[in-house]
Amino acid sequence: MDPRHFAYAFSVRLHDTDAAGRLFFGHLFRHAHDAYEAFMAHVGLPLDRLIREGEILLPLVHAEADYHRPLCQGDRVQVVLAIDEIRARSFAVTYRFETHDGTLAATAKTVHLRINRDGSPAAGLSDEIRDAILPYLHEDRPQ
Amino acid sequence: MDPRHFAYAFSVRLHDTDAAGRLFFGHLFRHAHDAYEAFMAHVGLPLDRLIREGEILLPLVHAEADYHRPLCQGDRVQVVLAIDEIRARSFAVTYRFETHDGTLAATAKTVHLRINRDGSPAAGLSDEIRDAILPYLHEDRPQ
Amino acid sequence: MDPRHFAYAFSVRLHDTDAAGRLFFGHLFRHAHDAYEAFMAHVGLPLDRLIREGEILLPLVHAEADYHRPLCQGDRVQVVLAIDEIRARSFAVTYRFETHDGTLAATAKTVHLRINRDGSPAAGLSDEIRDAILPYLHEDRPQ
Amino acid sequence: MDPRHFAYAFSVRLHDTDAAGRLFFGHLFRHAHDAYEAFMAHVGLPLDRLIREGEILLPLVHAEADYHRPLCQGDRVQVVLAIDEIRARSFAVTYRFETHDGTLAATAKTVHLRINRDGSPAAGLSDEIRDAILPYLHEDRPQ
Repeated sequence: MDPRHFAYAFSVRLHDTDAAGRLFFGHLFRHAHDAYEAFMAHVGLPLDRLIREGEILLPLVHAEADYHRPLCQGDRVQVVLAIDEIRARSFAVTYRFETHDGTLAATAKTVHLRINRDGSPAAGLSDEIRDAILPYLHEDRPQ
Repeated sequence: MDPRHFAYAFSVRLHDTDAAGRLFFGHLFRHAHDAYEAFMAHVGLPLDRLIREGEILLPLVHAEADYHRPLCQGDRVQVVLAIDEIRARSFAVTYRFETHDGTLAATAKTVHLRINRDGSPAAGLSDEIRDAILPYLHEDRPQ
Repeated sequence: MDPRHFAYAFSVRLHDTDAAGRLFFGHLFRHAHDAYEAFMAHVGLPLDRLIREGEILLPLVHAEADYHRPLCQGDRVQVVLAIDEIRARSFAVTYRFETHDGTLAATAKTVHLRINRDGSPAAGLSDEIRDAILPYLHEDRPQ
Repeated sequence: MDPRHFAYAFSVRLHDTDAAGRLFFGHLFRHAHDAYEAFMAHVGLPLDRLIREGEILLPLVHAEADYHRPLCQGDRVQVVLAIDEIRARSFAVTYRFETHDGTLAATAKTVHLRINRDGSPAAGLSDEIRDAILPYLHEDRPQ
């Protein structure tokens, strides 16, 4: 795998599915965020520390997903995460959801904005954040 | 309805069900807690205020449910909530889940313990809590 | 309200929030879909019937949301739903999430594609679907 | 670990927590069921196959949990699963939730009843089920 990617695996569980027999679309975002949490811990920015310290607040301001193939209970899924864009005060993360045979089931994207404690946009992303995520920025986006 | 009961209604949504076509058992507790939140707001103890003020902490220490009939997407459910027991530092809440034709689909129970900020058990439930929930205590439990 | 809009209300519950104290972004999609389910039932296309009959399959192929203001436990939210676009085999639904004082907290959009039982795209949306949702199509999108 | 136990690990994610900063109690059941799904696949009874074939239906008829210590975002949790009881038509599964330092955070129990397709109780658990789970039955329950 491209070293600028971060991989995270999960199994589709019964509670992920709905009566139509496939992953309920909204739960894809839960798994995307699980991958994001694992990624942030991997690059030294575990969310529990960020939330506890309260210095770096990075709420999501945008999320989107495209669904290509249904995911069903028991499917093993690999999430390939990459940084899509780094801007002055925000960054975008992309996610590819692939089943074990390499089939692309879905893609997703989340945008995180750094804000101050009062909710106003921060002056900028800190160097700590930029340095941590920069190695995962790539021009050939996974989408 | 018995005035010692509090009623809360919801519809079973697609995301509540799983690939077996019925409510995923764990989601019953989400709906039970929704009823509890509505009840606590009704008796003047809205959870958002309690959590924000941090003076009264009432974490769940026990939860249980019995499932009698499957609940399916589109079902309209009435939750009948009552106080089952009030003890020195805790109280128990019971829930009956009935479909619109009065069929009992499930029952549940949650036990809430008052703790101090450091996590140790509190000296006792406050008068504020006791007075608020006492009118809903009954000897004929809804289960 | 504009008659081409459909309204749906909910309260932000404790389980909707996360340790950062606000609605977990992924749960917005659950509430959007609740509004969509209520809308579909309102226009005579209840999802439980569609799934049970299996003739009309309308899986989501795209979802997106923008988050403007945090939503917190206890907030009463009104979802204003409208049809954004009707195409040959798909339609798009938009959602505005407003708190009781009219503040716009978030917007969302979902795209639903009609497929055949084997998963291939259907020849077209049926007249039944088109007629049901057309009254909610508008040029001034809620976003 | 006792060979009659089955272990399953997970991390507490942001969406598992609520505004009170700890695991929302209802989500414990989701994780218990994830462990149960992994266990059933391990003993040759993957739930996706059971649901697809429709011959063996094992809905939950009871669930309960006791909460000893709060679980917070980032906590690594090990679930130790065992079979607590095997009866004519049902079996009970117990779960211990331990943090990485061995602290007991919670216990849970689920009871699964074999039913026929029409919802009536089955004549009995099949030999296939009994043989698969028997090695995990123990007299010293994990609770």
